[in-house]
Order: sequence, then structure tokens, then C-alpha cells
Amino acid sequence: MTRFAFTVEFDGRPFMGWQRQAHGPSVQQAIEDAIHAVTGERVVVHAAGRTDAGVHGLAMRAHADVAKAITPFRLMEAINARLGRQPVAILACEEVTDDWHARFSCIGRSYVYRIVNRRAALTFEAGLAWQVKQPLDAGAMHEAAQALVGLHDFTTFRSAHCQSASPVKTLDRLGVEREGDRIAIHAGARSFLHHQVRSMVGCLVYVGMGRWSADDLRDALAARNRAALGLNAPPDGLYFVRADYPA
Amino acid sequence: MTRFAFTVEFDGRPFMGWQRQAHGPSVQQAIEDAIHAVTGERVVVHAAGRTDAGVHGLAMRAHADVAKAITPFRLMEAINARLGRQPVAILACEEVTDDWHARFSCIGRSYVYRIVNRRAALTFEAGLAWQVKQPLDAGAMHEAAQALVGLHDFTTFRSAHCQSASPVKTLDRLGVEREGDRIAIHAGARSFLHHQVRSMVGCLVYVGMGRWSADDLRDALAARNRAALGLNAPPDGLYFVRADYPA
Repeated sequence: MTRFAFTVEFDGRPFMGWQRQAHGPSVQQAIEDAIHAVTGERVVVHAAGRTDAGVHGLAMRAHADVAKAITPFRLMEAINARLGRQPVAILACEEVTDDWHARFSCIGRSYVYRIVNRRAALTFEAGLAWQVKQPLDAGAMHEAAQALVGLHDFTTFRSAHCQSASPVKTLDRLGVEREGDRIAIHAGARSFLHHQVRSMVGCLVYVGMGRWSADDLRDALAARNRAALGLNAPPDGLYFVRADYPA
Repeated sequence: MTRFAFTVEFDGRPFMGWQRQAHGPSVQQAIEDAIHAVTGERVVVHAAGRTDAGVHGLAMRAHADVAKAITPFRLMEAINARLGRQPVAILACEEVTDDWHARFSCIGRSYVYRIVNRRAALTFEAGLAWQVKQPLDAGAMHEAAQALVGLHDFTTFRSAHCQSASPVKTLDRLGVEREGDRIAIHAGARSFLHHQVRSMVGCLVYVGMGRWSADDLRDALAARNRAALGLNAPPDGLYFVRADYPA
């Protein structure tokens, strides 16, 4: 058995999410089926994070154990050929040691959330960003966001389906940048609760609209109550961008 | 009659091109039909440039004459509402004088051509960039490109269907930039021949692969013969990005 680590790009629009589902296509299944076609083996592909339906990946990290003797380059090329027109691509593949685990070894996860702040509907980016019509004050969003950085009980920003043992997490970074009508929200942490990034983004958009003050955001966090959440942003704008591992 | 100028974004993938066609959908028809639905008027929408099938627009400029009394903002909003899920959006609309013509008043046109230089097939960007598998030397492409800048007979880089009176044009800018696996080729001129940008890009890719030298590109230009063309790049990566008018 050789353990291979993968860097995966995927367009989340046609998928029910990363994780294999009985009722629809998933990124995990697309890659597992491609590996089966290449090796004849039924493997399980583990990812650094399990993204929801409609969420995208620019460089998701994943791994699988394969018995067939094959080089990382040839395995990558063969999987990509089998993926065909499905919008999933293996960008890199390398051999790793048996104790390397895409999920459990991961010590840092980064997401970006993309907003297009304009009145006209999206063309190229339909399903790839959140179109917000009301003008947003990105500076106010960035300032307010800093109240969420650090060690907090994020119960307000946690889905009812979250399986994390604790709602207490350390948020390392939450930055808001505007360039023209594009707003990018960068979030980094060792790990996130289910829906945490989308929930934080939704509340920051309330701040950007002037509907919430920075204090309202602080109060929502302090409430430690999902009912205090302003808004959960749609999956369209969310991208898993990086997973970090010990050197 | 009021003349309205539009700034138009469109995803060229589902269209036969800008210009109205009997045999398939066009960007021009989508906008003309939307204006008809709003005003009851059958208008002609003129654009700064007529793009081919599969070519995109980030900020195409266009105009139409409308009899109905309506503000630019309300006209824009109404057209966008009628465009519905078609990937065409009016980003700006203003009143202009009757002597302003999107095509004939235009004194500068800019395109960008996007290449993704990697082995894996495109996911998000399928149809929105040209995937080139062989490693490209963007520095060599940029240097070679400078031989095409200036006043030349561009017959080699001109489609057989080109309707321009003369193959002699002045190319103002042709720059090649790489960022990671993305290569962007920026072209600017008062006007371009049919297929000129795609033909120049195709030959620059030959240079980037090492298949052509900079001298080979010079020789192709000097040949003034379509048969000397190396390669015509696919429409996928081409975007009309800007039209300039006298202040």
C-alpha cells in the first residue's frame, strides 16, 4: 500500500458537497470512482475538510491508499483522464508516509468568500460568488470582523448539524478586502465549525449594509445562540483555498 | 429619440457571437429582445466590436436609440430584469449625444487572452480560458511579441472572412504576463482585423513552447500570408475588455 496525497480543485456547482452521498453526486465519489477505474481498487479518499453542496475548492488536500504500483505523476494523470468533463481536477500528487492524514494531520485551513457587490446579475460567476446588490462598506466589515478573531465560543455561527465536540475555536484571521465591485473575505483557523465561515460572512454583510453595527456583531457572538445569527451566506461564494501541515 | 450607451458584460459560451444570427443565439439579439420587451420598440444595438462565437466581454460598449421616455438607470434595470438567466448584464448605461456611435466613435480597443498553463483540465474555467499543457516561457513570448507592435501589414494574422478595407494596422500594445499557472496576453489597438488577437496568441504560444523562435514570428509577419500562420488560438480565452472614446 502506498499513501498518495492529492491537491484537488473542484467547481462545487454540480455536487452535493465533498462527502459521498446516496442521493447525488459528490466530489469524493468522483475521485474514488476514477481511482477505481484506474486501479480496480475501492479506496476511500479522505479530505482536509468536508465542504457543503455548492461550495468550491481551489486546493483541497486529500489522501488515499493504493495497492497498485504506480508513480504519483501517472496516478494523477490517469485520475484526471477518468474524471473527464466532471469539474474536478487533481493539481498535484505525491507519496506521503502512512501516518500523514489529510484531515487529522491538518493544522490550518483557509477559506475565501467572494462577493460581487453590484446590481446586475452575475454572468460568468453565477454560482461562483454571492451577488449583493446593496452597497457594502468593506472597511466597516473588516473592522467589525476583528472582534471575531481569537478564541471564542462560536455557537452563534454554528449549524444545528455541526458534529464538532466543542463550539470553542480559535479564529486566526478574518480579513475583508475590496477591489472594484469585488469583495473577498479571507478566513483562517486550525479548524472551523459547520457553516462558521458562511455565518460570519452573512453577519459581516449586515454590517457592510449598515443594518448592524460592530457592536451588534459583538453582541451576536456573546449571545452564544444560533438565534442571534443575522444571516447565513449562500454556498456560492465559498472556496476552500489551503490546508497546512507540519513541515 | 434618446441615444443610450451601454457597458455590457457577457459570457460568450452559449452564444454564436455578438452579432445577430439566423441560426443561433447572439448577445446582440438577447439585448435587442430585452429592449423590445421593455419599450415595445425594435431597435438595433451597435457594439464597439463584433466578437466571434465563444468570445467573452467584460466591458463591451454599445448603443441604441430609444423613443420611450425612460431614465438610463431604469432602462438598465429593466433590460437586466428581462435578460433573466442569460449570461449578459448591462453594467452601466448613460445618455449620449446623437453623434456618439459605439463602433465609429471608438478610438481604442483592448482585449485580454487568458491561458491556463497546466496539465489538468479546467474546472471553473472550462470555456473561459485556453488550457495549454506544455510549459510556456512567458518571458520569451513577451519579448517576441514586441516585434508585432507598431504599424504592420497583418495579413498573416487575418481571417479569410475579414471585412477590413486594409490589412495594415497599428498595434499599440501586446504584453504577456504570468502569475502562477495563469498567463494573460493584453492587446490594444485602434482596431483589429478579424481573428488578429487569436492568431497572434496562437503564434506566441508556439514561441512559448520553444517550437518557434522570435525570428520565426518576425518571418511569419513579414510573409504577409495566412499560410505562414502557426496556430489560431481558440475563442475560449478571449475577452473584449475596454473601448475608448474621445473625452
